[in-house]
Amino acid sequence: MFTLLQKESRAPATCPGPASTQDLDSNYGDGLERECSRKPDQKVPEFCGVGDPTAMLSSDSSYLSSRGGIIKWFWDSAEEGYRTYHMDEYDEDKNPSGIINLGTSENKLCFDLLSRRLSQSDMLRVEPSLLQYPDWRGHQFLREEVARFLSFYCKRPTPLKPENVVVLNGCASLFSALATVLCEVGEAFLIPTPYYGAITQHVYLYGHVRLVCVYLDSEVTGLDTRPFQLTVERLEMALQRANSEGVKVKGLILINPHNPLGDIYSPGELRDYLEFAKRHELHVMVDEVYMLSVFEKSAAYCSVLSLEGLPDPQRTHVMWATSKDFGMSGLRFGTLYTENRDVATAVASLCRYHGLSGLVQYQMAQLLRDRDWINQVYLPENHARLKAAHTYVAGELRAMGIPFLSRGAGFFIWVDLRKFLPEATFKEEMLLWRRFLDNKVLLSCGKTFECKEPGWFRLVFSDKAHRLCLGMQRVRQVLGGKSQVAEEPRSCQTQEPRSQRR
Amino acid sequence: MFTLLQKESRAPATCPGPASTQDLDSNYGDGLERECSRKPDQKVPEFCGVGDPTAMLSSDSSYLSSRGGIIKWFWDSAEEGYRTYHMDEYDEDKNPSGIINLGTSENKLCFDLLSRRLSQSDMLRVEPSLLQYPDWRGHQFLREEVARFLSFYCKRPTPLKPENVVVLNGCASLFSALATVLCEVGEAFLIPTPYYGAITQHVYLYGHVRLVCVYLDSEVTGLDTRPFQLTVERLEMALQRANSEGVKVKGLILINPHNPLGDIYSPGELRDYLEFAKRHELHVMVDEVYMLSVFEKSAAYCSVLSLEGLPDPQRTHVMWATSKDFGMSGLRFGTLYTENRDVATAVASLCRYHGLSGLVQYQMAQLLRDRDWINQVYLPENHARLKAAHTYVAGELRAMGIPFLSRGAGFFIWVDLRKFLPEATFKEEMLLWRRFLDNKVLLSCGKTFECKEPGWFRLVFSDKAHRLCLGMQRVRQVLGGKSQVAEEPRSCQTQEPRSQRR
Repeated sequence: MFTLLQKESRAPATCPGPASTQDLDSNYGDGLERECSRKPDQKVPEFCGVGDPTAMLSSDSSYLSSRGGIIKWFWDSAEEGYRTYHMDEYDEDKNPSGIINLGTSENKLCFDLLSRRLSQSDMLRVEPSLLQYPDWRGHQFLREEVARFLSFYCKRPTPLKPENVVVLNGCASLFSALATVLCEVGEAFLIPTPYYGAITQHVYLYGHVRLVCVYLDSEVTGLDTRPFQLTVERLEMALQRANSEGVKVKGLILINPHNPLGDIYSPGELRDYLEFAKRHELHVMVDEVYMLSVFEKSAAYCSVLSLEGLPDPQRTHVMWATSKDFGMSGLRFGTLYTENRDVATAVASLCRYHGLSGLVQYQMAQLLRDRDWINQVYLPENHARLKAAHTYVAGELRAMGIPFLSRGAGFFIWVDLRKFLPEATFKEEMLLWRRFLDNKVLLSCGKTFECKEPGWFRLVFSDKAHRLCLGMQRVRQVLGGKSQVAEEPRSCQTQEPRSQRR
Repeated sequence: MFTLLQKESRAPATCPGPASTQDLDSNYGDGLERECSRKPDQKVPEFCGVGDPTAMLSSDSSYLSSRGGIIKWFWDSAEEGYRTYHMDEYDEDKNPSGIINLGTSENKLCFDLLSRRLSQSDMLRVEPSLLQYPDWRGHQFLREEVARFLSFYCKRPTPLKPENVVVLNGCASLFSALATVLCEVGEAFLIPTPYYGAITQHVYLYGHVRLVCVYLDSEVTGLDTRPFQLTVERLEMALQRANSEGVKVKGLILINPHNPLGDIYSPGELRDYLEFAKRHELHVMVDEVYMLSVFEKSAAYCSVLSLEGLPDPQRTHVMWATSKDFGMSGLRFGTLYTENRDVATAVASLCRYHGLSGLVQYQMAQLLRDRDWINQVYLPENHARLKAAHTYVAGELRAMGIPFLSRGAGFFIWVDLRKFLPEATFKEEMLLWRRFLDNKVLLSCGKTFECKEPGWFRLVFSDKAHRLCLGMQRVRQVLGGKSQVAEEPRSCQTQEPRSQRR
């Protein structure tokens, strides 16, 4: 089910441990790697691992509170990477030598389809009720549509209920709200690493909730295991470690399909994790934002909502959004599904700070109900394009002799560049990241995902052929000196994935 | 400048004091009065005044954190009023005996103009950049438009700068973000009472920031004073009181034009308040969401942005939104203007939780740049309609012998119903509120605005003639028994304000 090519057997790198810095998304999108753009000796606060949560940065502004200073720090620390990329963004005509972004996890393959659909006249409806204060849970017509949509695409045995749906402006907000209503200040969620690092600030900035890492490693230990495999034993260990250090854990975050691994949990695995959580009375937040971005037909995806008889339905909360599956991170639409009325109500109460326009709610309902377009136009074409782009990048990596992980879901490949580090340190990882940037291609390094082994990178392939091709050329140039493959870049024209030409 | 008709001289009611409950907006819009819909003996937490902030409700849910329980409590406590109104909402055809809502501060007079404008083809533009992750401060094109718009309508001597603009999904979010980045947990803002009560939860739910009330009263004490006049002496007293009780005050909230008083601060008053704040190094948040809803030509409005040489520009933060001035509370668009880079950056860092759709950002830029429509169509017509509706309601109140305050701005009249209370208590105020609701008209009672004198109500007049007329009939029926005026309701047809017929 997964691909790990030419994986080297290496001793695991030093665990970054409790004093480690934290991965975060950038101020502009989610892929500019703040962590890698910060000076190595820059002092950073600690937001995850298990340690002393009071070891914070003090505010450097007399105008801000101490938490305001930390919140600003998160922005500032992304600034260097942000400025570097956005001051020199690649443009085919205007700036062909600009930076190619293979770091931000966005699907740029289907803007033509989306533009055409969203520009249709049924998308612009202006009614008084849409301009007035909404029900903060989301308009009833939209929650009904979301329930129908998720029932169908999550293969739910029985219809989901609109009253269990809360709609808001994206999953970042949902993480913030759930952290706040489920945890006291300083309490924590478990999260397997590597993980989509922006979650750290989503649960921390408003909620002051921390993450306890369940560190996974790439070594395959048995027949039925895969690299970075999450096991109940690992969960138990991490929970015990947190308990022993006096950190109260209130929940577990699962990302399925996984970012950055591209992994898909089997129904059996999902059940095991949910049973573990039930034993310890932990909430489980299941982030399924890549649910419809499984482009490999052989990869059987199973939503947690499809499971019959959830172990602890009152503590199981499912998140979905249009940002990834419909390639619209700028539209700001996310949704919670939970049978727990208290949790739904408390999140709804915070939704006055996470509301989205009535006009957008109408648009989203129109989009989600258009099954003909979704099933016959959008999904088949999107999957074909994702697969073509993936095939191209995977081929390039193979040609370079670079091992990687990929199971046919998501927009990225988890690439093992450990052999390109002179030493297995995060400092060397950052130097390599910077060499990529200097050569005008932006990747995300493993530190950003709290990966404990230096040398892993996330490479986003969901981009147009010409950018992808140029980006891979530049990757090859950087690695070329240390790789066995020919250094002559292959022609972009001949490598263009099939569906990209459409 | 203001109207206070037949004001009775009454002893001020007992100050609700530190143990008082707090005003809040409802779950559905901002006008359903949670406070009045709660049982009188219901235990409530304390979020304002000056007192012990730890006197919180404990969570009644085993699934929620204690703060989650409080957040949920805010929702639940609004439920009764919410249910009562929304289960029996007035509809001219389907439910003519349903409840008329004169409680929610929304402008329902211009949906025809807005629908026409927002439905034009220039409003639906779908570009890749609008669907991708935005700059969290707001798209550059929109911040430029906001800066131009505010420069013009605030009568700014020199152009405002786009880099000082942060765009987000409404002023509720802005209060939440500012409270969090300016204050530590438990610190406070000063706010003159009565005030738009939802601010209590905006600063508390995420930020755990409290409000210190600057209690004002209706008695006129000198030639140059008006009822509920804010003076520097009152500000000093409230600040001293907070200091003496160990509450650290970090800022002052000003609402101008004022909600619920309809007051407009003169440039001299504004300067006095800003100088007071500067002396004490307090931030000033100026909420100007009714800035373009000054419908009385004689009322000279002065935005804080029009003042030359602000006393403390680094601590002066201005808020505006389209919710009131463009009658679009459901559109969720608000903006901050501040010269303080640290504050702008820290708020921007939280904007990933308060983002709005790229498509809406495009729409808002189109709207704000359409000066012809704003100046020649929307504003003149909106002001004429507001004035006609106001004239009608003011006439009805005069005919009933009811004193009120109104200075020609906003959507509401602050009505003095103290003589209709058998005793000057908030219990009696609530009973009167309930009698209105039982007679199918919803108002907002003074307690909801932390008014210290029982018997004041906010009556929203920015509604269509037939609803307004029926609402006023029902108000008259409730008060009729205790009023000197004829109890026979006047015909709605003959009382219909001129512009309502258009």
